Amino acid sequence: MELITLVIYDIEDDRIRQRVSEICKDYGLERIQYSAFSGKLSRNRREELFLKLSKVVGRQTGKIIIQPLCEKDVKDQKVIVNEKKSDDLAEENK
Amino acid sequence: MELITLVIYDIEDDRIRQRVSEICKDYGLERIQYSAFSGKLSRNRREELFLKLSKVVGRQTGKIIIQPLCEKDVKDQKVIVNEKKSDDLAEENK
Repeated sequence: MELITLVIYDIEDDRIRQRVSEICKDYGLERIQYSAFSGKLSRNRREELFLKLSKVVGRQTGKIIIQPLCEKDVKDQKVIVNEKKSDDLAEENK
Repeated sequence: MELITLVIYDIEDDRIRQRVSEICKDYGLERIQYSAFSGKLSRNRREELFLKLSKVVGRQTGKIIIQPLCEKDVKDQKVIVNEKKSDDLAEENK
């Protein structure tokens, strides 16, 4: 059974942080925050992701939390979100 | 019943981000990552925290996820962690 899985990380090294986000995307997860991804994974895929990320981090300073969420927990999630104003986005895309 | 609750956030404004982390501490949560806190909260306290954080963020750009975790989910959490070497810490505390 696939469960929504959160991956949240603190990684100092830019290159490694970049690799972590690429691997999350490879596993079909979507970026939900600057340093957080979310998506459905089976227990096997979650285990695989854990091993892959462990290898990428290696002995570098960092922390990654891989957190599966049951349906009830997902339902009880609360989100506060204010998108960037489109003016700001236009500014950044210049 | 109190559940371990994750609070993860992306806040651009330094002052507001600081306020969010202070409020998390006021609610007895502990910092687990640069922009993530965790700790036990009852449903009422979680609701209170949600309202308080919503007010602090106001109309500023940002996203906060408040995620309660059942015991089973907590048990299935996987963490990769490499602490900063003590040398590095000594360097930062100079």
